Amino acid sequence: MTLPRGLSAFPITPTDNQGRVDVAAYGRLVARLAGSGVASIGVLGSTGGYMYLTREERRRALEAAVQAAAGRVPLVAGVGALRTDDAVRLAQDAAEAGATAGLLSAPSYIPLTQDEVFEHCMTVARESGLPIVLYDNPVATGFRFSPDLIARLAREPGVVGIKNPTESPDKTVAHLAEQRAATPAGFSVGYSGDWNCAEALIAGADAWYSVLAGVLPAPGVAIARAVAEGDHAQARALNAALAPVWRLFKTHTSLRVVYALAGILGLADTAPPRPILPLSAEAVHEVERTLKTLPSVWPPGPQT
Amino acid sequence: MTLPRGLSAFPITPTDNQGRVDVAAYGRLVARLAGSGVASIGVLGSTGGYMYLTREERRRALEAAVQAAAGRVPLVAGVGALRTDDAVRLAQDAAEAGATAGLLSAPSYIPLTQDEVFEHCMTVARESGLPIVLYDNPVATGFRFSPDLIARLAREPGVVGIKNPTESPDKTVAHLAEQRAATPAGFSVGYSGDWNCAEALIAGADAWYSVLAGVLPAPGVAIARAVAEGDHAQARALNAALAPVWRLFKTHTSLRVVYALAGILGLADTAPPRPILPLSAEAVHEVERTLKTLPSVWPPGPQT
Repeated sequence: MTLPRGLSAFPITPTDNQGRVDVAAYGRLVARLAGSGVASIGVLGSTGGYMYLTREERRRALEAAVQAAAGRVPLVAGVGALRTDDAVRLAQDAAEAGATAGLLSAPSYIPLTQDEVFEHCMTVARESGLPIVLYDNPVATGFRFSPDLIARLAREPGVVGIKNPTESPDKTVAHLAEQRAATPAGFSVGYSGDWNCAEALIAGADAWYSVLAGVLPAPGVAIARAVAEGDHAQARALNAALAPVWRLFKTHTSLRVVYALAGILGLADTAPPRPILPLSAEAVHEVERTLKTLPSVWPPGPQT
Repeated sequence: MTLPRGLSAFPITPTDNQGRVDVAAYGRLVARLAGSGVASIGVLGSTGGYMYLTREERRRALEAAVQAAAGRVPLVAGVGALRTDDAVRLAQDAAEAGATAGLLSAPSYIPLTQDEVFEHCMTVARESGLPIVLYDNPVATGFRFSPDLIARLAREPGVVGIKNPTESPDKTVAHLAEQRAATPAGFSVGYSGDWNCAEALIAGADAWYSVLAGVLPAPGVAIARAVAEGDHAQARALNAALAPVWRLFKTHTSLRVVYALAGILGLADTAPPRPILPLSAEAVHEVERTLKTLPSVWPPGPQT
């Protein structure tokens, strides 16, 4: 079985202003997602602020998420860290807590070589036993997985998939064909960058790692279902209805927008970790106005 | 008084493979530098691996450095962190331990805005009381301080200087003129990127933040002295003699090279934090060979 597949929803992790996780609020977010029709939940991803939380807080969040999901959907847990030994411990914690897979990025300060990241990933996979989904996020980490490195890692036992960034729908289709050719059957090829992911799924990607679905899962669930049923026109119409949200993500960054959405929707009363600032009052109003333009019931008809 | 000024030497921080600082070895490195003629020591800079060490280990390193320097030279301590509250605590620790100034970078994961970094720096300066040297290192942090942000911060009490990156000697000379014009008198403008810094000092920069000087202080001390005495030809000749070292830095990165140098010179038996790997045996031989081509006594004559 290829794993992860389908829509993976990445919620924020509510915390206080010192980085202590509000496990009650987080449990409510995860429980809501677990019953929403998403195929998996990505806990402690970039949107979940993994790099801003201590090992102890990440463990508290994981335990709350496992309890809230209650086995209804698999959890993919971010286990990235600057140090290899820290990433090993985080992956061990995730395995112990009950995560199905670990999402392993290569955050860097001193720029890393491809060989260094190969060793990093192999060490984490080997010493944790947790199935590893590679997480390529050059904008955040300063490191880009080369096609050769991905092909090398994809052949290793314990490395089960990858979460790729996207630039545009066209490039994603070509990228998917190349990565499929370079990786073994059963290796899960997935994408992030919500605005490009309907086309990625239509092109045959295994997974859509979604920021929006972490706060508003219904639109992504409807798109993923339409693709699974072969109704590409419906998937594209649903995606087109989200264009105003994708514009907000591109203008204000998806993380800052979903924090605002969580507040507007009454899901969590929290703020991003400083130095990241919440959106301005003006931008929050823009998010509120955009939300009102969206179809109130998902899935809307193809022409709405 | 403008501070920092002159040559600031940035040693590595010897640790075991779990990130625990070898305070005895570190104290020896710092004590040697404190008696070498450098104007200040940069503890827990990028070369000192600040981003890879816990608060507790950074405090242990700081205390060892203060003890080893024994008041002979001021210490500038790296206090950067992803979270603002962590950076505040690190700056408070540095102030308490006896550092003269804090070197404050803006490491990012989620890309930061200029306003966010302004708030970040002001919060650290205000809540720690430690004089702050801004640390602009876009390659490592993913954030570039804009000229406007620097001008804004330089006007604030408590922000005493900046450590800038360099691209080339020519661009550094022009950059210095622009930054001087945009910052108040007494604001310390300094540079890193060792191969460009002799020219930066000749052009009138206040400080050279040196990686090489952390392991091999004599050449930089001689260059800084020649510049201070107005002997630019001598400074340039000394710098030209270091060209093979600068080539190594550009090929293998300065951090990896100074780790190898520390081993070759018998100063410390340690390795960079994983995932960063030590240089290959072949590259270490290249460093050894290069070391033998350098003048054995500094300063050499202008023509040697």
